[in-house]
Amino acid sequence: MPRLFVAPLRRVSPEGTRNDQDLVAVEAPLTIEVQAHGAAPASLGIFLRTPGDDGSLALGLLYSEGVIRSIDDVAGTALELAADEASATIRVALASHVAFDAAALGRSGISNTSCGLCGRLTDQLGHKLPAPKKETGTHFDEMSPGLIFSLPRKLRDAQQLFEETGGLHAAGFFDHGGVAADIAEDVGRHNAVDKVVGRALARGQLPASGRILVVSGRIAFEIVQKAAMAGVRTIVAIGAPTSLAVQAAREAGVQLIGFARDDRYNIY
Amino acid sequence: MPRLFVAPLRRVSPEGTRNDQDLVAVEAPLTIEVQAHGAAPASLGIFLRTPGDDGSLALGLLYSEGVIRSIDDVAGTALELAADEASATIRVALASHVAFDAAALGRSGISNTSCGLCGRLTDQLGHKLPAPKKETGTHFDEMSPGLIFSLPRKLRDAQQLFEETGGLHAAGFFDHGGVAADIAEDVGRHNAVDKVVGRALARGQLPASGRILVVSGRIAFEIVQKAAMAGVRTIVAIGAPTSLAVQAAREAGVQLIGFARDDRYNIY
Repeated sequence: MPRLFVAPLRRVSPEGTRNDQDLVAVEAPLTIEVQAHGAAPASLGIFLRTPGDDGSLALGLLYSEGVIRSIDDVAGTALELAADEASATIRVALASHVAFDAAALGRSGISNTSCGLCGRLTDQLGHKLPAPKKETGTHFDEMSPGLIFSLPRKLRDAQQLFEETGGLHAAGFFDHGGVAADIAEDVGRHNAVDKVVGRALARGQLPASGRILVVSGRIAFEIVQKAAMAGVRTIVAIGAPTSLAVQAAREAGVQLIGFARDDRYNIY
Repeated sequence: MPRLFVAPLRRVSPEGTRNDQDLVAVEAPLTIEVQAHGAAPASLGIFLRTPGDDGSLALGLLYSEGVIRSIDDVAGTALELAADEASATIRVALASHVAFDAAALGRSGISNTSCGLCGRLTDQLGHKLPAPKKETGTHFDEMSPGLIFSLPRKLRDAQQLFEETGGLHAAGFFDHGGVAADIAEDVGRHNAVDKVVGRALARGQLPASGRILVVSGRIAFEIVQKAAMAGVRTIVAIGAPTSLAVQAAREAGVQLIGFARDDRYNIY
């Protein structure tokens, strides 16, 4: 399924109005199902995402939620396109040793912010944060300012679709030499993080304590939560953090860098 | 509860590193409960939002979801702060004539993109879009380019918190003379739309067919859906639209303007 869509449009500027077309990022529904060994598939719901690597999206999400802890917990994934190819279903089959309680992940009601926590009835926020890690990992104290300065530009340069559409969030894993290990783009910023986490999981690269997570845009609680679950020690965001992102990073022992632009940044 | 939080930080720039502090936007959990007449309260879940006008957030959300259709459907709202004031619950009591089926709004599983649809098991996307409106309303054909050009700047100028934090989304209702009727800011872009819709509902100003909805940032499906439900005929977004936003606007008869910056914009 394509990730770009050609939209007809009228361009208005001081020079006048003309008919034209432009590429926009595809946003399309994906149903994620989890199938425990010997059980019927359970739907986790419909997600709006940019098509592409839906298996990694599902794996990263399940890892962030604590359902799976390594790729050995996954028996396989299968993608099924609807007849009109406008929507799709990804099914993750769990290995026989993995206990899965769909009801424990269940929620009731509407969720309406960009946050995987929303709609969860019983969780307290803190329950989703892992304890601060003691093991070694990349901290900003070990990184030069020049390295930090370079990351937003490198993320942007590596974004294949953004330049085309202006409409995609990006998340990337970088090593502490400033080299991009992996980058994902998606209309949903959490999806982009889930995709890089899911791919790292499939490669046996979690916990990602040697990676810096670089994200486009602003940073709220849920990105910090996902990074902490993935073992990331340092997050670099191009935009502003929220209060809960700052607090969660502190509690989880994750170092949070915000407003990383050009030649300056803030360490929270 | 405060909407700004003072975060200590270290500023790094070519001039060196210094300890400082800055304001960040507060992101905090809100539980939304709906109480049908004579029934026990039903939780719709936990939402992360910037505190302030939580009643309007809940009303706008319930209107977007089709639970309430006018302020006469609401018997009252009550906000309860947790003992530590870090979280809160808003309860919306429905009037006795309003039927409410919590299970029909129920969903199962995780939702993880910035979309109120996510996690809904049974809905088809199109079911949430109202039919195209025939009644009069503000269309771009009736508005001058100069008016459109002015809206992003007016939204930004009216944002009280953004200048402080750089971290808030904004949504505003403008009249077709370009005057701001109402503006809301929130860490969640859908929350900001829900707040302006909720306030318009409380004032008896829905459907908002005479309003232009102006939103900061990018625009995905759900914002178009909320605008269409509120009767808005024209949306102006500062950022890029997604494919599903373009398609949904077309289907709902909503005119979508994107990339509205300085002296140019695109009409999709």
